[in-house]
Amino acid sequence: MEKFELHILGCGSALPTTRHFATSQVVNLREKLFMVDCGEGAQMQLRRSRLKFSRLGQVFISHLHGDHCFGLIGLISTFGLLGRTADLHIHSPRGLEELMAPQLAFFCKGLPFEVRFHAFDTTAPALIYDDRSVSVTTIPLRHRVPCCGFLFEEKKQADHIVREMIDFYRIPVCEIGRIKNGGGFTTPEGEQIPHARLTRPADEPRRYAYCSDTAYLPRLTEQVRGVDLLFHEATFLNADEARAKETFHTTAAGAARIARDAGVKQLMIGHFSARYDDEREALAEARAIFPATILAEENRGISIHKYSDNEIL
Amino acid sequence: MEKFELHILGCGSALPTTRHFATSQVVNLREKLFMVDCGEGAQMQLRRSRLKFSRLGQVFISHLHGDHCFGLIGLISTFGLLGRTADLHIHSPRGLEELMAPQLAFFCKGLPFEVRFHAFDTTAPALIYDDRSVSVTTIPLRHRVPCCGFLFEEKKQADHIVREMIDFYRIPVCEIGRIKNGGGFTTPEGEQIPHARLTRPADEPRRYAYCSDTAYLPRLTEQVRGVDLLFHEATFLNADEARAKETFHTTAAGAARIARDAGVKQLMIGHFSARYDDEREALAEARAIFPATILAEENRGISIHKYSDNEIL
Repeated sequence: MEKFELHILGCGSALPTTRHFATSQVVNLREKLFMVDCGEGAQMQLRRSRLKFSRLGQVFISHLHGDHCFGLIGLISTFGLLGRTADLHIHSPRGLEELMAPQLAFFCKGLPFEVRFHAFDTTAPALIYDDRSVSVTTIPLRHRVPCCGFLFEEKKQADHIVREMIDFYRIPVCEIGRIKNGGGFTTPEGEQIPHARLTRPADEPRRYAYCSDTAYLPRLTEQVRGVDLLFHEATFLNADEARAKETFHTTAAGAARIARDAGVKQLMIGHFSARYDDEREALAEARAIFPATILAEENRGISIHKYSDNEIL
Repeated sequence: MEKFELHILGCGSALPTTRHFATSQVVNLREKLFMVDCGEGAQMQLRRSRLKFSRLGQVFISHLHGDHCFGLIGLISTFGLLGRTADLHIHSPRGLEELMAPQLAFFCKGLPFEVRFHAFDTTAPALIYDDRSVSVTTIPLRHRVPCCGFLFEEKKQADHIVREMIDFYRIPVCEIGRIKNGGGFTTPEGEQIPHARLTRPADEPRRYAYCSDTAYLPRLTEQVRGVDLLFHEATFLNADEARAKETFHTTAAGAARIARDAGVKQLMIGHFSARYDDEREALAEARAIFPATILAEENRGISIHKYSDNEIL
């Protein structure tokens, strides 16, 4: 199975604590890295993760609050010192480029690569990234400022050809691509061998949805229905539900209701408020509603599987 | 003895590593906190130090390179969330206020306290902070951009009055302040008791000098002569001396020569390049020239003493 992993760099909320960095995570899809949010310290955590800096080409910023983007300038500056030459693409709601331009001009003069900003609309889902193996679509959220989550959808791959069939029918190399993509094979004797006999089906594409920061938003279930892993913010406990409403955040139980109603395979909760000393209570409140819940945790990775449980790395 | 401590929050150089944060430290003088430089992650490290955020009133930025100031916006933002009301003073070379103003306006709207920027000249020593207990003077350094170190000089305190003398001569409370500050006492019988008989001398004022980033600069010895603790950058080893010159940094041996020639009591080296895996070699190279050298280390504190060795906390 191709690699599809999520690495948590930080899962705290606005106030950093001794236990949590501000929000940042990395999706590793077949060794291409996608950063989601970039709070202060993201570059240090990325270094700790041992993921390769040079593999990171796209950064997705959910919204322009400091705990989701203050790490960008340090990350870019470090990429410059490391001699990066590949463009770095930053996707965010409108306004980030204007905010960062003076800093980039002053602190990152002579950067050996281009920083390309892409602003997205936050009112309707939009495809903002697409390549051979993955697409990224925005998930409009409801927060105090324009905000979107992101849906990572793996592309369906070509079927696997069965080596024994190549040998048995002496299939020439030039035919293999066509067969993997759905074709059959005709032997020199004119026998038609159907595609299904020559191949094993490709792995089912996997999906990961990231939703932070947001008020409890039942309509989310439509867009994240059945995903293999849902990250949902769970800033508050039930006891602080009023505070969650006021600040446009969600409780652990609220996140679990979304997961349950959307029929997702697994829920990871994060974006923990600094007011709580540990997250086991949040976990208990979520599991009471949706048992397949796990806690986000710094320097923790999870490998996303389709037919077996997602695996903690 | 009154508290005079140095806490290292970060002692790496431009590239953060898994072992070092970017440069930041805190001077604790009688529970007033002074931050010196504020690299990315400084607020997280400050939290780890268990020092009280509310005690921090002054921040001194040596120069406008990212690894010395990218932590400011997060620190200020967090102070806002914590409901700080006291002004925060930031001293730096010219240009910082203009760079930060757009970010502050966007990310820190409605901050419940004032951020007051004070630009200093970097070409000649200048007194930039002064209160009852300490003064801070700039130490012009030589780097690729305008840069100053900082000299913290404790003020001489009043002498200690000897309790037994108060009792013996029945000295009224209203006289004590005058006597501590140099006066004698005349008994109701007209006997003159000299100041020296009534008091023990105040502790000798202590001095701490911070020098980072700078090329090897022999004239520094004049301004840091005899300080109780000198922090000096030691970005490179002897083997990379050419690189030190090119980048306007100092080797560990260069830092030790400054310490030796200035007759300081103790040298702490820091601002270590990411290229070295551990700093024991830097320590050995420095100690060969100036034995009273120690390594800066994250989350390490040192208490500055006058008549005995500075004490690692």
